[in-house]
Amino acid sequence: MSGWALGIAYNGKTFHGWQRQPSVPTVQSMLELAASKIADEPITLTVAGRTDKGVHASAQVASFKTQAIRTEYDWLRGLNGLTNPAVQVVWVRALETPFHARYDAVSRTYNYLFMDNAPRGDVFSHDLAWCCEPLNVDAMHNEARSLLGEHDFSSFRAAGCQSVSPMRRINRCVVRRQGPYVVMEIEANAFVLHMVRNIASALYDVGVGQPRGTITELLDLKDRDKLGLTAPAQGLYLTGVSYPQHNFPDSEPPRHLIGNSTFIPASLPLD
Amino acid sequence: MSGWALGIAYNGKTFHGWQRQPSVPTVQSMLELAASKIADEPITLTVAGRTDKGVHASAQVASFKTQAIRTEYDWLRGLNGLTNPAVQVVWVRALETPFHARYDAVSRTYNYLFMDNAPRGDVFSHDLAWCCEPLNVDAMHNEARSLLGEHDFSSFRAAGCQSVSPMRRINRCVVRRQGPYVVMEIEANAFVLHMVRNIASALYDVGVGQPRGTITELLDLKDRDKLGLTAPAQGLYLTGVSYPQHNFPDSEPPRHLIGNSTFIPASLPLD
Repeated sequence: MSGWALGIAYNGKTFHGWQRQPSVPTVQSMLELAASKIADEPITLTVAGRTDKGVHASAQVASFKTQAIRTEYDWLRGLNGLTNPAVQVVWVRALETPFHARYDAVSRTYNYLFMDNAPRGDVFSHDLAWCCEPLNVDAMHNEARSLLGEHDFSSFRAAGCQSVSPMRRINRCVVRRQGPYVVMEIEANAFVLHMVRNIASALYDVGVGQPRGTITELLDLKDRDKLGLTAPAQGLYLTGVSYPQHNFPDSEPPRHLIGNSTFIPASLPLD
Repeated sequence: MSGWALGIAYNGKTFHGWQRQPSVPTVQSMLELAASKIADEPITLTVAGRTDKGVHASAQVASFKTQAIRTEYDWLRGLNGLTNPAVQVVWVRALETPFHARYDAVSRTYNYLFMDNAPRGDVFSHDLAWCCEPLNVDAMHNEARSLLGEHDFSSFRAAGCQSVSPMRRINRCVVRRQGPYVVMEIEANAFVLHMVRNIASALYDVGVGQPRGTITELLDLKDRDKLGLTAPAQGLYLTGVSYPQHNFPDSEPPRHLIGNSTFIPASLPLD
């Protein structure tokens, strides 16, 4: 058996998320079908950061094992040839040491995109961002600092979450303006269900000047019902998974986010 | 009868272009259906710059007449409420003087978007730009200057074109890098069928260092068959129609193009 790792990007619009489900299109189903054809045997993919319906990814990492003898180029060309343009395999690596895409991940990074000052929506970006009122980016960024470190995220956790613990450690959270978008970038050891979208929603309330309380107050409530709506899926991007033990290619930001970025220096990495 | 003008933006992906056709979704059909419901009588829209299947618009202008008594706000709210998020009515004006959206237009402006250095495509932009090899933007811009002024555009005209004359006058043509995109912006009194996409294709050949001849040579051929493929529809945006006699709101560029733009100063407006 040989082991393989894949870097994957996809536009979540047409998918019911990552995870294989009967009767609806998912990224896992599409890629497993393609990989199984190439290998001529059933292939099962493992990932970190399973995404919900409509959520995007620019740098998801998957792993699988197979008895088939194929080159990196075979997989890259084959998988991209057998999937539609909404999915792209960005890189393929043959594994020389044991690797599990989910258990070996030490952190995950997500971007949440707002298109601000677009209250009526935007015909070109409505699937790629949350179109909303004008946002106070500095206020959002300053409030985001309260998320850093280890906290009980019960207030930001969806009812269906299956995690044993609500404790998560945020390594980094910055809010910046980038071209026509406002971007929240957040890195944590892991996330509970809908945590990024619930944080995006709370920071949106801050950005429009109608906070339901400070982030610290919201964390202390430990009660999801006190928060607003979950921010919509189309603004969320999985943009990185960190495997310090493995020398995988660097993840690249979504290309439509490359360009005019106003970085706020106080990005405050912990440690 | 009262006359009305509308500023319209749409994502062309799901439409078979502007013009009403039986059995397929078009922008005209969707807007006329909505306007007719609001007016409670049949409404017919007139536009400048009828777009082909898959082509986008950020600033198309339409006109219509009706006996219905409605306010600008009634039309704006009603039309946006009755159409899907891929179409947006950006502004509405009651007309105080006679106006015909097509015959009164003195020029049209289009943008063609390339996402360069994305030869495998880009999952987020494949419907919004032509994903292609790395491009030499300066070479494209310099070659574009040969288009300025009045020329016979037979070489850049599709076989099905119904215009009487192949003569058109280009007022402006610039190529610049903007964020992750290369943008060709072109303004002319009018365009023959597929002219912008055929010019984009010829400038692409220049950008990748494989020109089929200088633009001047291609113009002189007066033979469409000597050119390459027509550039794909998804890169094309109608971004402005000029009516100097009417005080309509300024057209805005597509918002995903706002941001880091490198303007090349030699934009060379004629006159």
